[in-house]
This record gives sequence, structure tokens and C-alpha cells, in this order.
Amino acid sequence: MRPGPIEPGSGRPVRAVVYGVGAMGSVMTRLLLDKGATLVGAIGHSPEKVGRDLGEVAGLDGKLGVTVEDDPAAVLARSDADIAVVAVSSYLETMFDHFQICLEHRTNVITIEEESFFPWSTAPSLAQRLDDLAKCHGVTIMGSGAQDVFWMTLPAVLMGAAHRIISVHGRATWNVDDYGPEVAEHVHAGSTLPEFESHVAQHGWPSFVVRNTLDALVADTGLTPTGADTAVRPVLAAADTPSSSLGRVIEAGSLLGVIDTATVTSQEGPWFTFEQTGCVYGPGQSDVNEWIVRGEPEELRLRNDRVPTRLATCTQVVNRIPDVIAARPGFVTVADLPRPRYRHLSLHSYLGCG
Amino acid sequence: MRPGPIEPGSGRPVRAVVYGVGAMGSVMTRLLLDKGATLVGAIGHSPEKVGRDLGEVAGLDGKLGVTVEDDPAAVLARSDADIAVVAVSSYLETMFDHFQICLEHRTNVITIEEESFFPWSTAPSLAQRLDDLAKCHGVTIMGSGAQDVFWMTLPAVLMGAAHRIISVHGRATWNVDDYGPEVAEHVHAGSTLPEFESHVAQHGWPSFVVRNTLDALVADTGLTPTGADTAVRPVLAAADTPSSSLGRVIEAGSLLGVIDTATVTSQEGPWFTFEQTGCVYGPGQSDVNEWIVRGEPEELRLRNDRVPTRLATCTQVVNRIPDVIAARPGFVTVADLPRPRYRHLSLHSYLGCG
Repeated sequence: MRPGPIEPGSGRPVRAVVYGVGAMGSVMTRLLLDKGATLVGAIGHSPEKVGRDLGEVAGLDGKLGVTVEDDPAAVLARSDADIAVVAVSSYLETMFDHFQICLEHRTNVITIEEESFFPWSTAPSLAQRLDDLAKCHGVTIMGSGAQDVFWMTLPAVLMGAAHRIISVHGRATWNVDDYGPEVAEHVHAGSTLPEFESHVAQHGWPSFVVRNTLDALVADTGLTPTGADTAVRPVLAAADTPSSSLGRVIEAGSLLGVIDTATVTSQEGPWFTFEQTGCVYGPGQSDVNEWIVRGEPEELRLRNDRVPTRLATCTQVVNRIPDVIAARPGFVTVADLPRPRYRHLSLHSYLGCG
Repeated sequence: MRPGPIEPGSGRPVRAVVYGVGAMGSVMTRLLLDKGATLVGAIGHSPEKVGRDLGEVAGLDGKLGVTVEDDPAAVLARSDADIAVVAVSSYLETMFDHFQICLEHRTNVITIEEESFFPWSTAPSLAQRLDDLAKCHGVTIMGSGAQDVFWMTLPAVLMGAAHRIISVHGRATWNVDDYGPEVAEHVHAGSTLPEFESHVAQHGWPSFVVRNTLDALVADTGLTPTGADTAVRPVLAAADTPSSSLGRVIEAGSLLGVIDTATVTSQEGPWFTFEQTGCVYGPGQSDVNEWIVRGEPEELRLRNDRVPTRLATCTQVVNRIPDVIAARPGFVTVADLPRPRYRHLSLHSYLGCG
């Protein structure tokens, strides 16, 4: 029988399904356990993971008694989970069926899928269908990750100190080598400049992460967007640069990655731009997040140095779980939730066991 | 007749009384007008301001038709204000009567008085009396200022990216010369080291701002404080340094100001420290705000350079007015309110005129 809804102090740990047992899912498995969640299911796809214990697959010390299975419907039907922590792939179109099956099993969803952070501009009809489905089943779906704290809430709070905004400029970097070969290919790391240019000319360029993040930030201000532009430009290697995700050296002159830029204008005047560099790093480089708000005061500045973007994506998703469970049904964004705050052992003590 | 409660879309601008027409009150007067508030009263004390038009006193281009008066009860009784913007002096004990008279006239209060930001540790009985009074009259009192965004909400959001916190270290600086001779005296700018040491030995040292800010931050985590320490040490001039607020040169070896530090420990383990330097600046110095959260991730870092602390105090107070009007009655803190966000012409459009 499905357990009743969670209430703070009810003395029941959050029941979580780990949906996707790759690098990110493995880290989140450890964090979920640390915070006292009960893992009630694990969903994977690759033959070398299916059938094995989640603890082993996630690289933990011991077994968890939870087997990785490749039948999401069976796992979700059996597990009576409060939340599915979904880390499988990018783009709402790719992920639609995965989200749908969770919602149909009345399981809340939190995901690192980037478009889900604010899907209403780039995938409005898919978002609407999932919103309807979530409401119909009384559950919530939301995207989170490093963008929650670093690219959305911190600049939004900084803007709260402005009397009048003329423009907002964001700049963030992340290391392609932190995310494996699929992401490296996605940003064309290792391609030659002609290969990259010919690809963009033929296929265009999807605005990855940066557009959705900026849309979320603008929506939070209550201003009326009048237009959005995105652009991409290559980051070329000045010298031969080894890439751990590609397992080879990128030659000088080839692509280390790309700079994605989004710009949004508003009817009321303020305009916003966010530039995101995803590339293979050279020695000594680390992730940076920087925002400048211009207007009155003339400048408000915020900078995060050495951002642990990859780990912070996992920690923020786990910290957000109580907020998502408590949120109204539907496809929500972090702007609908209370601001991020530290949760000491929250998935346990939130439920009255701490 | 007193107007009914404000509701968004009711088409009525916020009615504000400027309570204290010094440097900060003057800036806030301009910002309030800019955002579409109706100024319905001005309260001052010094003979050279009382009886003059608020626009003149605040250094604006024209008159406002609002005369600065020295009888708070008369102004508040007549003005039917939604909010009093109070910038008179520091410490809850000094300000108690000013706040009381606002609350008794059923007027919400927002103030830059520093202890009011989180008064429950350093002035609990005064805070309780004001809390009771505010509830009795169905209005709200809250402290805000630069600490709202910079020393409280930004580090609190940063902590939201932590899985586990060991310690939190904050460091902020502000320029004594931005705040006039009273503040300069307060931090003993221009005193000799023996004078300062003898003063501290005789009178102790009140924890100014830093303790209240840190208490607010710790309270926001839900952790259980087990102890708090404060300390002060002098900042000595390495060379002769002119001070505009003192109107003279501070000799090498004398005090430019002080470094106030507060440390709070918690039952659950995480500990917090905040170090605030208030001193007369040398050439090229500017306000900095920096936070480091240690644990997992190993480090989360945030830095604001060239913080316009003084102006941001005024902008944040004005931006917070709709939140304070909408808040539950009582003595609240910014942690009880929605997080700061940008308000485009909010005191006007919030009320349906925009």
C-alpha cells in the first residue's frame, strides 16, 4: 500500500528512487543515504549495471540491498517512492517518457535535466503536458542543479539590492572534463574549427542550459520579456591540451569547447545577458561564476571562485527534495519554492527522526 | 479616516512617513518618490531641519509639500501611513520609543537600526515588548539594510549548496567616512591606542551589527546555537590618513577604526564566524563582502567587490517595503520574508497603478 503523504514530524524518512545510476546518480546516492533517506529503488539501463546492487554501482563501501533494474514502471509501482531523483540525459524531449512514467506513478520528480530548470520558453508544449500530468496525479516536477544557487538565486538576490536596473551580465565557466565523453562531444571538444563551423551552419546550435537559466532569472523579476537571442562561439586551444573525458590530447587550434550566450530584453527596459563557457580546462583553471548588475547603484558585483559545479549540482538536488515534496503539484521552478537554505540531515530530521 | 489595508492591484500607492531626515533618510526619500510612494509625513529633530520642506532637506530639486515636524505622534496620527521608514540612531534601547509610537499608531516599521535585524539574542525583552505591541496593533516591524542581501541572504543561499557544513567564515568591510562623525566616533576613529584600550577596559565593547547579523544567519539554518563570542581589535593607521567624517587627519599609529568579530557555535557541529571591519579607508580601498563555507563541498566561496554598502542599505529598505506590509504582524526578520528580489517601480505598480 502506498504510504500517506509526508508531513514534517511524521517520523518517516523520505523514500527515494535513484533514476539513472551514472556519475551524478552515484554521487546523489551517497548524499541521499548520508541525509537519512530510504532508497527504495534504482533504475538503470546499461547491461554492466543492471542486476547489480546500487551500493556497488555507486562505488559505496557496502551493498544497499537495492538492485539496479531496467524496468522503470515495475520499480515505481512497487517502491511507493516519495521522489524520483532523475539524472539520465539532457533535453525535455529526450527525457519526456522518463518523467511521464514517474508522474503517472504519483512520484514527485527532481532532475538535473537542464531544460527542466525553466522549460516554458524552449519546450512549452512538453512542459505543459508534464504540468497537466503532474497536477492530475497530485505531484510535482522540478529541475535543479548548480544553476539553482549559482546562476539563479544568487544573482536574483543581488538584484534585490538594486533600486533600478539597466542591465545584468552573468558569466560562468565549467570544465567539460568533469562530465564525461558525452558532454565533451556535445560542446565539440576536440573538433577542428571547420568541423564545428560546418556543423553549426548545417544544424544550428541548441541553447544549452544558458537560455533556460536566464529565462528563469528574468521570469523571477516579473519583467515582461520582449525578445531572446542566443549565440555560440568556439574556445580554441592555444596549446596542446590533454582531455581526460576524451582520453586524448586536443591539438592547438582545435576546440576546447564553446561559449554559449543568451540575451533577453524586457518591455520595461532592463536587459540581461549570460555567457557560459564549457570547455576542457588548462592547468590551474577552475569554475567561476560572476554577475554584474548595472543601474542604481551603478554596479553590484558578485563572484564565486572555484565553484565545485559538478558536486554542487548533486548537493543542491538532494537539499531541494523536501521543498519539491512540499511544493504545489505541477511543473514548478525554483522561483516557486522557498530560497535555498542549508539542511542539516534534512531528509531524516525533516521527518521527525533527527 | 484611515485607508483600508493595502492589497496588490488596489490602485493605491504606498503611504510612507520618513522618520529621520539625516543622510540616509534623505536618500530614501528620493528612492521612495522614484518608486511611486506617496510621502505623507516627515519627522526630524534638529532645529535647522524642522519646519522646512522635506524636498529641500533631502536635497531634491523641488519642494514636496511635506514639512519636517518634530512631533511624531501628531504626524503619525494625521498621516494614515502604511509604513514608517525609520533612520534615526542605533541600538534598540535608544530607538524603543520611536518604534513604539509608530506601532501604537498602527503604522508598519522598517528601519536601518542594526540591532533590529535580529534582536532576539542581544535585546530579547525589548524585542518581545515590540513584538507584542506590533501584534496587538496588527502591524509589522523589521530591520533591513545592506546586511539583508549581503551579510545574510547571499551567504544563506550559498549554504544551500552545501551537503554538510563544518564552518562558515564571513568578512566584510565598510568605510567609516561614508556615515558621518557619529559613526566615526562610535568606532573610535582618530583615538590613540591607549585611549581605545582604556575605553574597552572600562566600558566593554558592544557587538555592533556583526553579532545580530550572524545570529540571523544561524537562526536561518535551524541549527541550535550553543554559544556566542564577540571580540574587537583596533585598525591602526600605517600612515597619516585624512578622514572626511572627522574633518581632520588621523595620525599614523592612531585608530582608523575597529574589527568586530562574532563567533557562534551550534549543538549540531557547524560553527560560524563573521568579521567586520569598519574604518576610515586609505586611497583605492572599497567595501568587500566575502564568505567561505567549509565542509562538503570542501569550499564554497562568495565575494562581492566594491559593495556600495551605504546606498545599498537605502535601496534594500525601500525594496523591502511591500514585503513588510504583507508580512504577518509582529517583530519579524528577513528570514520570515520572501527572499529579496528586484522590484521595478514596486511601490507604485505593486498597487496596481503601474
